[in-house]
Amino acid sequence: MVTSNANKAREVAAYFEGVLEVEHVALECPEFRHNDVGEIASGKAKFAYRRLSRPLIVDDTGLFIDALGGFPGPYAAYVQDTIGNAGILRLMEGIEERSARFETAIAFAREDGIRVFRGVISGTIVAPRGAEGFGYDPIFEYAGQTLAEMPLAEKNRVSHRARALQAFRAWIEQEIGERQNR
Amino acid sequence: MVTSNANKAREVAAYFEGVLEVEHVALECPEFRHNDVGEIASGKAKFAYRRLSRPLIVDDTGLFIDALGGFPGPYAAYVQDTIGNAGILRLMEGIEERSARFETAIAFAREDGIRVFRGVISGTIVAPRGAEGFGYDPIFEYAGQTLAEMPLAEKNRVSHRARALQAFRAWIEQEIGERQNR
Repeated sequence: MVTSNANKAREVAAYFEGVLEVEHVALECPEFRHNDVGEIASGKAKFAYRRLSRPLIVDDTGLFIDALGGFPGPYAAYVQDTIGNAGILRLMEGIEERSARFETAIAFAREDGIRVFRGVISGTIVAPRGAEGFGYDPIFEYAGQTLAEMPLAEKNRVSHRARALQAFRAWIEQEIGERQNR
Repeated sequence: MVTSNANKAREVAAYFEGVLEVEHVALECPEFRHNDVGEIASGKAKFAYRRLSRPLIVDDTGLFIDALGGFPGPYAAYVQDTIGNAGILRLMEGIEERSARFETAIAFAREDGIRVFRGVISGTIVAPRGAEGFGYDPIFEYAGQTLAEMPLAEKNRVSHRARALQAFRAWIEQEIGERQNR
């Protein structure tokens, strides 16, 4: 798992316990400016594979608010650090169309190329509720709860990142099975 | 001049007429996520030089609004394309501290390394005025005029990009002079 975020690497390692051994590599990867998190993750994976020459995953996440033309998009982290949830809510004042989606793309690179797995959660932007989670969680509502109101176990089942990890895990488990049956 | 923007390359070529021959190369360069445009330009120049192996410049520009923690920063182009000037003004509603700066960094790469030249223009965020220019120009005031009210000749003297180009030109002219005197 190539990321500058050690917590993320630990979470991913825990998720794959017993299936895959996941090691953390803190390599910073450059990004092509792109509106699609899959393209960004792909580009980072290609860069990392050239450096490391071993199977690896990288991820990229964006928050896309429809009424704001997709803002903050792949720059969600920077926007959170600057104008924050208060800024987002200000931009949404008086706007009835509140739909938004989080999207995570996981890119898996190995010698035969790069595969991208995506996870999406669609919801609405609301006034902040809840004390769990971080970042945009308090203002993103899904099925009646904000992500910050959700117990961690539930968030880990329905979140964009969880869904991308599930997609990757389903694929890699089949790959491993096929290799063992050869 | 490595850029995906042919107009920018043309402007730069015109600026260096008689001093340097400037050719446009439309190579997309990846970017390290960074809050400093100099670091971003440097990273892009390093990438481009590895591909092209010839003297080149790349630039990167950001708009930094103090009251918004530096937002939109190096993501000014994406923010302009999504929430636009209306979004910026909304975020600034009721805020008295209106100071902001545009910054352009030009990175020049050749076989002996990379040099960065910067240009900054400090001003304030105001209600839109003027029909010239593009992007944030109508809401960025400098010395009593917005950049969109300024005649092009004046903007080309005082703007962040102009100042960065001036700094690079002063340096490269001296370099050329020294080579000719050898």
